[in-house]
Amino acid sequence: MEGLRKIQPYIPGEQVDYQRVIKLNTNEHAYLPSPKIKETLATFDLAKLQRYSSVDNQALCRVIAQNEGLEDEWITTANGSDDILALAFQSFFQTKAPIIFPDITYGFYPVWCELYQIPYQLLPLDDQFQWDFTKIPQAIGGLVLTNPNAPTGKTVSKQAIIDLLERFPEQVIIVDEAYQAFNEESVAPLVSKYPNLYVTRTLSKDHALAGLRVGYGIGSPRLTQVIKAVKNSYNPYAVDALAEAVAITALEDRAYYQKVNQQILHTRSWFSEQLTQLGFNTLESHTNFVLTTHPSHKANILYQQLKEHAIYVRYFDTPRLKDYLRISIGTQQEMEQVTTLLRKLTQKEI
Amino acid sequence: MEGLRKIQPYIPGEQVDYQRVIKLNTNEHAYLPSPKIKETLATFDLAKLQRYSSVDNQALCRVIAQNEGLEDEWITTANGSDDILALAFQSFFQTKAPIIFPDITYGFYPVWCELYQIPYQLLPLDDQFQWDFTKIPQAIGGLVLTNPNAPTGKTVSKQAIIDLLERFPEQVIIVDEAYQAFNEESVAPLVSKYPNLYVTRTLSKDHALAGLRVGYGIGSPRLTQVIKAVKNSYNPYAVDALAEAVAITALEDRAYYQKVNQQILHTRSWFSEQLTQLGFNTLESHTNFVLTTHPSHKANILYQQLKEHAIYVRYFDTPRLKDYLRISIGTQQEMEQVTTLLRKLTQKEI
Repeated sequence: MEGLRKIQPYIPGEQVDYQRVIKLNTNEHAYLPSPKIKETLATFDLAKLQRYSSVDNQALCRVIAQNEGLEDEWITTANGSDDILALAFQSFFQTKAPIIFPDITYGFYPVWCELYQIPYQLLPLDDQFQWDFTKIPQAIGGLVLTNPNAPTGKTVSKQAIIDLLERFPEQVIIVDEAYQAFNEESVAPLVSKYPNLYVTRTLSKDHALAGLRVGYGIGSPRLTQVIKAVKNSYNPYAVDALAEAVAITALEDRAYYQKVNQQILHTRSWFSEQLTQLGFNTLESHTNFVLTTHPSHKANILYQQLKEHAIYVRYFDTPRLKDYLRISIGTQQEMEQVTTLLRKLTQKEI
Repeated sequence: MEGLRKIQPYIPGEQVDYQRVIKLNTNEHAYLPSPKIKETLATFDLAKLQRYSSVDNQALCRVIAQNEGLEDEWITTANGSDDILALAFQSFFQTKAPIIFPDITYGFYPVWCELYQIPYQLLPLDDQFQWDFTKIPQAIGGLVLTNPNAPTGKTVSKQAIIDLLERFPEQVIIVDEAYQAFNEESVAPLVSKYPNLYVTRTLSKDHALAGLRVGYGIGSPRLTQVIKAVKNSYNPYAVDALAEAVAITALEDRAYYQKVNQQILHTRSWFSEQLTQLGFNTLESHTNFVLTTHPSHKANILYQQLKEHAIYVRYFDTPRLKDYLRISIGTQQEMEQVTTLLRKLTQKEI
């Protein structure tokens, strides 16, 4: 048959029956989403499913805009982070010069470049998994910076991002803030000063709504017009009426998320300390996961041993990450179980 | 700023406050979706939102496959018809020869061709809004056939589609069956004989779930592998966990939809008869809308007059459709109100 597309898709972390394992392999939230969502679902008016939802999710945009102290026309909603990022790639990177992102970051970026035929160049992170901004070429088509980065959990300073925005004023710089709520600061307030900044977010991680698929982008009205034109040339209603209602309930229940996200930070700190005691070297994390390595236990073997005990973590079989495990922060109880098992495994008591 | 995409998006029918108007402009269903959805929402386990949904919506695929008498690997789910069609365009039309679709059909096809840079050629429908298959060029990249067609409501015979599939065995032919349940027959059973046939469906129209965004494609495992690779290179989880659960409930409540869809066919028949009595010429419809024209009343004026009375229908300001109104079939009561008003307007009693 002619005309068939050949492409290597992104390979996500394994999806397993979460009721039978401790699932720490895809950075899902340790806790349930806001309990108020129960009420939203129980009282949902079915007439809202009978009708098309609003093209631009005005109600949801308003809540997001208010959170950010912006007007609605700075916000674009989409079907998860993947959707808003893929739309941003299509919208802002119609370029001949390569766009830049690091060799170690979210694995979907090169896949979208392939799908949309966007030239790209990987910038190797240094031995400490940090950006070396001096190595960015003069002529670039744009730049994507995950902050905090995945799977390292490391951040880039606000000043470093400002320097990039000023160095490349004619190129769009996307800052992917999927893990924003676990970090100290966001660069979203910079959008009103830098028209070349586009910030993306998702409710999957910090709002415990991976199964809902709501993401959004924040950028100048000019960038927003461009991305909305592309969105409305593809699938205008991608955030359905139910997802919009649930997302609004979640975003409005700030007290709940502050509480559970604080609990994750507490557990992350406790778990990192335990890892250190077991001889692991763990990168300082600004997310709901840690990247860790042990000098005398191979990561792929630990990964298999954990899996045999129904604990799923993420192992990346790539040259620079093959010595590391990425472990999502679960509940305190889950991390205690993981710690107990890791203690046995690293002391070879099993 | 460099690299910004310029594109003219699809313009959907106006979304208005449906509680204050009779909304017959976007072919939404006249009735509410299955009442069983209430229970699905009220008992939904929030842990399913906390976790990523299954990449391939296995549970939903199984229900669809069983309905079609196929195995799961023939089915691909997506975020509405727009998503499955846009994915199919990207997956099957990597071609230099133009793909073919009619000059009067779903307005999104040329927008996707523009977005994905797919060459296309419009085939003018004849004066009766029918395909003239003899005019299809020898060398084509593929073909898209909406059956029943929108906004005409007309169908193409199964035999005509078989002839096309056999005439172009190396090209994919997409049959867009968005309005399938209002029609007598589907060509989906042909997929097992013709590996170049790809059928798309949506729950928006015949399952009263426009606000939910669930669509799907049916095709050979080979075509399904290609489209799933593209889907998983873009946004793997586009049908979220809630939408999947609601869609399953709807698809399993066949008795309810048979009843309400039968009611729509009954009202369509009644309303078409009324239009004839008022002097309109109405195309025979196989969908939940009619396309109609009046010899002595201009369509754009009737459109405005209806709107002034809070009745929204669709008017297309294009050379071949400017004399027509497309009117979705609402409830019997709504169509009686529309008929009363049209009687006054065409008899100039207002």
